[in-house]
Amino acid sequence: MTKIIDKIKQQDGKVAFSFEFFPPRTEEGVENLYERMDRMAAHQPLFCDITWGAGGTTADLTLDIATKMQNMICVNTMMHLTCTNMPVEKIDEALEKVKAAGIQNILALRGDPPKGQDKFVAVEGGFASALDLVKYIRLHYGDYFGITVAGYPECHPDYIEGPGGASEQAYKENLAYLKSKMDAGGEVIVTQLFYDTDVFLKFVKDCREYGIDAPIVPGIMPINNYSGFKRMTAFCKTKVPQHILDALEPIKDNDEAVKAYGIHLGTEMCKTLIAGGTKHLHLYTLNLEKTVMAILTNLGLIDESKVQRTLPWRPPTNIKRRGEEVRPIFWANRPRSYLSRSSNWDEFPKGRWGDSRSPAYGTLNDYQFLRKKSKDLKLREEWGIDLKSSEDVFKLFARYCKGELSAFPWSELETLQPESQLITDRLTSLNERGFLTINSQPAVNAEPSDTPGIGWGRPGGYIYQKAYVEFFTSPERLQAIISKMPGFPSLTYIAVNVKGETYSNIGVTDVNAVTWGVFPAKEVIQPTVVDPQSFMVWKDEAFDIWTSEWASIYPDDSPAKKVLQETHDGYFLVSIVDNDYIRGDLFAIFEGL
Amino acid sequence: MTKIIDKIKQQDGKVAFSFEFFPPRTEEGVENLYERMDRMAAHQPLFCDITWGAGGTTADLTLDIATKMQNMICVNTMMHLTCTNMPVEKIDEALEKVKAAGIQNILALRGDPPKGQDKFVAVEGGFASALDLVKYIRLHYGDYFGITVAGYPECHPDYIEGPGGASEQAYKENLAYLKSKMDAGGEVIVTQLFYDTDVFLKFVKDCREYGIDAPIVPGIMPINNYSGFKRMTAFCKTKVPQHILDALEPIKDNDEAVKAYGIHLGTEMCKTLIAGGTKHLHLYTLNLEKTVMAILTNLGLIDESKVQRTLPWRPPTNIKRRGEEVRPIFWANRPRSYLSRSSNWDEFPKGRWGDSRSPAYGTLNDYQFLRKKSKDLKLREEWGIDLKSSEDVFKLFARYCKGELSAFPWSELETLQPESQLITDRLTSLNERGFLTINSQPAVNAEPSDTPGIGWGRPGGYIYQKAYVEFFTSPERLQAIISKMPGFPSLTYIAVNVKGETYSNIGVTDVNAVTWGVFPAKEVIQPTVVDPQSFMVWKDEAFDIWTSEWASIYPDDSPAKKVLQETHDGYFLVSIVDNDYIRGDLFAIFEGL
Repeated sequence: MTKIIDKIKQQDGKVAFSFEFFPPRTEEGVENLYERMDRMAAHQPLFCDITWGAGGTTADLTLDIATKMQNMICVNTMMHLTCTNMPVEKIDEALEKVKAAGIQNILALRGDPPKGQDKFVAVEGGFASALDLVKYIRLHYGDYFGITVAGYPECHPDYIEGPGGASEQAYKENLAYLKSKMDAGGEVIVTQLFYDTDVFLKFVKDCREYGIDAPIVPGIMPINNYSGFKRMTAFCKTKVPQHILDALEPIKDNDEAVKAYGIHLGTEMCKTLIAGGTKHLHLYTLNLEKTVMAILTNLGLIDESKVQRTLPWRPPTNIKRRGEEVRPIFWANRPRSYLSRSSNWDEFPKGRWGDSRSPAYGTLNDYQFLRKKSKDLKLREEWGIDLKSSEDVFKLFARYCKGELSAFPWSELETLQPESQLITDRLTSLNERGFLTINSQPAVNAEPSDTPGIGWGRPGGYIYQKAYVEFFTSPERLQAIISKMPGFPSLTYIAVNVKGETYSNIGVTDVNAVTWGVFPAKEVIQPTVVDPQSFMVWKDEAFDIWTSEWASIYPDDSPAKKVLQETHDGYFLVSIVDNDYIRGDLFAIFEGL
Repeated sequence: MTKIIDKIKQQDGKVAFSFEFFPPRTEEGVENLYERMDRMAAHQPLFCDITWGAGGTTADLTLDIATKMQNMICVNTMMHLTCTNMPVEKIDEALEKVKAAGIQNILALRGDPPKGQDKFVAVEGGFASALDLVKYIRLHYGDYFGITVAGYPECHPDYIEGPGGASEQAYKENLAYLKSKMDAGGEVIVTQLFYDTDVFLKFVKDCREYGIDAPIVPGIMPINNYSGFKRMTAFCKTKVPQHILDALEPIKDNDEAVKAYGIHLGTEMCKTLIAGGTKHLHLYTLNLEKTVMAILTNLGLIDESKVQRTLPWRPPTNIKRRGEEVRPIFWANRPRSYLSRSSNWDEFPKGRWGDSRSPAYGTLNDYQFLRKKSKDLKLREEWGIDLKSSEDVFKLFARYCKGELSAFPWSELETLQPESQLITDRLTSLNERGFLTINSQPAVNAEPSDTPGIGWGRPGGYIYQKAYVEFFTSPERLQAIISKMPGFPSLTYIAVNVKGETYSNIGVTDVNAVTWGVFPAKEVIQPTVVDPQSFMVWKDEAFDIWTSEWASIYPDDSPAKKVLQETHDGYFLVSIVDNDYIRGDLFAIFEGL
């Protein structure tokens, strides 16, 4: 379920929130925006939206960002679409792209006048109003899209002529026009920004009198700095209550003080709105994170220390992947690589890993864009040091385990997963002894589902994990482990080298659920598995990282490059599960090795 | 996987066994045979087979029994098929019926001469030999059937002319003929009965020399009584070692002593065969249970106290139902009713209940045959007593709970499931207070999978259950429970009366796994669920039992019939799950009611 109207209906009285972003002007800005969205999405906004470039100038970028938001960041995405400079063929092209990307939500707008013009004029073969756009989407795309429209609590700025605001007649015509947009297919209203909460609450009341019964979501733009605030309210012809002007006047040159006031004001406005019956806050983030997050924290709507996940990994929001409930553990630290590989799968399994085995995993074509330059620099700095022997490699892995390094070639994430820290000491010891760990999880036996860090899913359930460790090691060390295996009957393993030589004590179709949860009135949910078939796909990626991400830092013929190439050529990648999650000790087999 | 050859290959060195039955001559005999098979199947024979009526006289009965064995008793079934009196159209008819019943195993035989004749003569349009039959099956049915053929360690009786046995030449021709049956498509050999183990072991050796590498399964016919033994060995021209004749001579008129000797001899013969390399014993049961079971117990191949189930219920053996891994709990005490209802489902879900929701549950057309007359008599005797009020009904339910009654209208089984006995006292108290329980299970938290009584599946796993109780009760008592529900957040319930009025705190698509198991290198197995949609099918059956099975015992206008009809019309059927299988107490909500 990804349509906003459906998600709102499911909220059950809880106050929801959503975030609006705009397309940044630089490549680096885009990279940072994804990072920011990733962090903000962890708090489960009802949706995030991305604006259509003003005057249609950055249409391609908007489309690209919307696609990545939906499919790589996995936030439920709404894309703005305006009529400015958009003949109908371009509208269709955009809608088809959005649909192909599995996005189901559109904010249908008329848009601002084209750059350099004062008045909106319809382009030839295009639409003159949001109403026409809504009608067109419904006519040609049926129920596929959830359509949101804009509401103007102070009337559309085109009809505001002086500081006194719009005339009563203009305001009423505005309401009637909004009603016609809803009748044509609009399902949700997001409002223009405002700073007078009474204006919004009156607007809601007036809408209801005009027969508009859709959810009306207030658009909140927290004040981040004084000049921006002044520019924006002038452009939108927004009424600003005197007490806000009075409060800002003495601090307007102190950026920190303005920001703090912005947080305070935003919090108070939201409190008033919630008290007035609002169930959903739409935040104009201006691509900034702190102010918005501070407001939500003040309101008690988010808690940085207790991010409750619905699954151990962030579920995809693409409508074609809604059924996805299970993933191989191998990509736990490289979720985007996994999403990229599996982006062309036609249909995701309804809960069973089995059914998704047939389609081949794709290549990583679409993956490079998400590589962050900053991570590459960190890797070069931390992992590009002089390497003379395998022992130097062991030391680097051990240092990463202890938290002394921040980047890791085998992880997209900047830090170790929190749960791994529980077993840091034992992992560090393994790495020092030549078992180069790249993925692990501790055993978990019946922890309540709302336990911070480990928990996921709704409260009232119990969470389980089988202990897991995955590492590279030399053939000799692998041999030593395999010879001890008969003494550890609860362990199952698969080992493979770059040539594909395989050792294992399980069958190729033995899919092992290593993370599961038991919830009231539900079947057991099994989101993470060890699957021998996907392990063979993963091993190519895992071995490739030795050379493409790490050895490539060094010049040819350097000793370091030679050490890494030899490791790549000779080592095995080993995956071990301890199936006794109650009494087992996965690390016991490594004792004395 | 139901083909015998595949199952033999999977045995992994363990000694397997199988049981042969013949079609009884009376209806009561057939009824008893099913009961016997049901008990014997609990010990997981590799397969059971049913003979083709001698001379083809009971062909229809054989087909019927084979179908019921496979689909209601759920034992992997092999049907004998002979050429006697069978023109090719009749062969085809039989094979099509068997195939439609999901049976995959045929024992292809020439058969004995028709009744009243001395010599086998091919019927017009029929086959003259097992070899022709094997060829025909392979040609027309490809790989669908697993084909077993008969082997004659002492040569086929047709070629045995005196007490010295067959000639060397006849014996060799016999081996060559067996080889041709294998080349034509035979996969497994089951031998004629014998009493000299050396004869069998030599036969195996000779077969190998003739290039026959298929499994050769010795046919063992334990001695049950003296005259039968004499008749059978004469008919089959079986060599009987002198020490057996010597042992039987002094006890031949003492049936008990002969039986005890039969068990002793069978055990010793089997031990010798196993020591000689035999991995599979085929037992000619003569439709008798005790001797065969005693031999297997002596050999340590079965243990009455430790029947290890692969799932909490016996999995279907019909090839079309192989994927079935989940069932609603409602039919736990009426497995045959469930099998009957679902017998026409096209395809069983691969592990997910969800996919099987669409096909409607069938009616119970094929069900009545399995009603046992003895159960009907017991019901009439125990449940047909004078009833004047609801309290009399409560008392009967409570007495059944305490084990004072053996039959129960809502159960096909003769006794309470063993696990229910753990909560007998609390259930009895519920029944005394007007909560008339018909199904229940206690909570189980991480018991090892080989725990007697509760365990199922392979060893090394952990078993879980959510506590469950299902009962009829008055609207007033239901109301009292519902009003207490908010204080018991771990409970979920559905209640419905005969008219379909429903109360529930879960959604209609909320499928609750109430029995599951976690095993090494496997996904979590969830064989039993509470599914609201199938509950609505079950409730019709459950309410119907009040009238069709119980009230029907009484004459019209009797007070008892009135009490039962009123209960049927007014009570609710209630299903409650305690989702907290670790700390919950399902019975707490009934305190003070």
